Amino acid sequence: MKTNEQLKTLPTALVRRLPAYYRNLCAMEAEGKETATSRELAERINNTSAQVRQDFFTCGGVPGYKVTELKNWLAKLMGIENDHHMVVVGAGNLGRAIISFKEFSDDRFFIDAVFDSNLLFHGMQVGSVPILSVALLEQYLEQHDIDIVAIATPASAAPEIYEKAVRGGVKGIWNFAPVDLGTDGAVPVQNVHLSDTLMMLSFRMEEIKRKKEE
Amino acid sequence: MKTNEQLKTLPTALVRRLPAYYRNLCAMEAEGKETATSRELAERINNTSAQVRQDFFTCGGVPGYKVTELKNWLAKLMGIENDHHMVVVGAGNLGRAIISFKEFSDDRFFIDAVFDSNLLFHGMQVGSVPILSVALLEQYLEQHDIDIVAIATPASAAPEIYEKAVRGGVKGIWNFAPVDLGTDGAVPVQNVHLSDTLMMLSFRMEEIKRKKEE
Repeated sequence: MKTNEQLKTLPTALVRRLPAYYRNLCAMEAEGKETATSRELAERINNTSAQVRQDFFTCGGVPGYKVTELKNWLAKLMGIENDHHMVVVGAGNLGRAIISFKEFSDDRFFIDAVFDSNLLFHGMQVGSVPILSVALLEQYLEQHDIDIVAIATPASAAPEIYEKAVRGGVKGIWNFAPVDLGTDGAVPVQNVHLSDTLMMLSFRMEEIKRKKEE
Repeated sequence: MKTNEQLKTLPTALVRRLPAYYRNLCAMEAEGKETATSRELAERINNTSAQVRQDFFTCGGVPGYKVTELKNWLAKLMGIENDHHMVVVGAGNLGRAIISFKEFSDDRFFIDAVFDSNLLFHGMQVGSVPILSVALLEQYLEQHDIDIVAIATPASAAPEIYEKAVRGGVKGIWNFAPVDLGTDGAVPVQNVHLSDTLMMLSFRMEEIKRKKEE
């Protein structure tokens, strides 16, 4: 096992593959498979066996290729075997989509409240999640043990929410607003740019078009 | 300029950076900047100047470092300077979030219709987008010139929608259902796994926790 010092600097490209390994190990477990091979994992995530083995080596070495053990090891590495409490800022369609996204609770991510600036929403609920005034966000974060703030506001509102979340002592920011937040901060930010994924798709479509035109 | 044959095999890691370059060039243009440097672009996307220059070289060489020219060159490379027509399958919160996401129309992605299996929704609209029965999807795709199908259904429904979309002749699939679709098909699929981004965030939070515990 590598030291924590080494573990803390994993490159983004590798970190991006960890959830894919985890998802596929969950699927293999559900299919009743007991052991995995680096080749099978590679095929499932569309990569090479060498890369799979290198990834696990870089992460500090795996406990073996038993599906359940490997899955649990990844869950521990990613910290998803613990409960996480989250609030969402923005009760529009995207905020509601985040709240209703069924998968999250399976992975022990709980959404405790959603904040919005629209007075008409206050006192209402999204599913069982109460909608509170965004003016109460900092106070709420100080009084509750919240790990993650998900930002689902317009770009213009996002930097202020980010500052409030950091002051409120949260440990991570999951940002859906179309602006890059906190690349240099002490609190990790995961920026999710939906339009980037659409541009990537468009690029792949264009590649195929160019190929056909040859 | 490289040949089309070379262009069609750009690695995913590079394709992932293209929208980030594009977004930042748009921002620089809005800030009134006329020229870019590889260093400035590198700082903005949190990478190295060498990587930026390598990326542009791999893409076939840039027309120079004038902000607007470079931005337009990237738009052409990604095919986003053309209009794209899209339908969304699934009129739940996620489908609605995709429809209401303001950015898309700026990049010439138009959403023409949304399909849902819930009879109660049929004949209604999301904003100005009509909700149609999912039973009409294939027929609709045959009769209209649709480039992209966005899948915002539960995982169980996604493979069948994917098959229908491919048969319907669309050129790309933007999949939000928590299942990997079509990794080997002729139609490019961009799988967007929101829970993966949450696991990546959790991993980064865990890294910092481990560091503090040292």
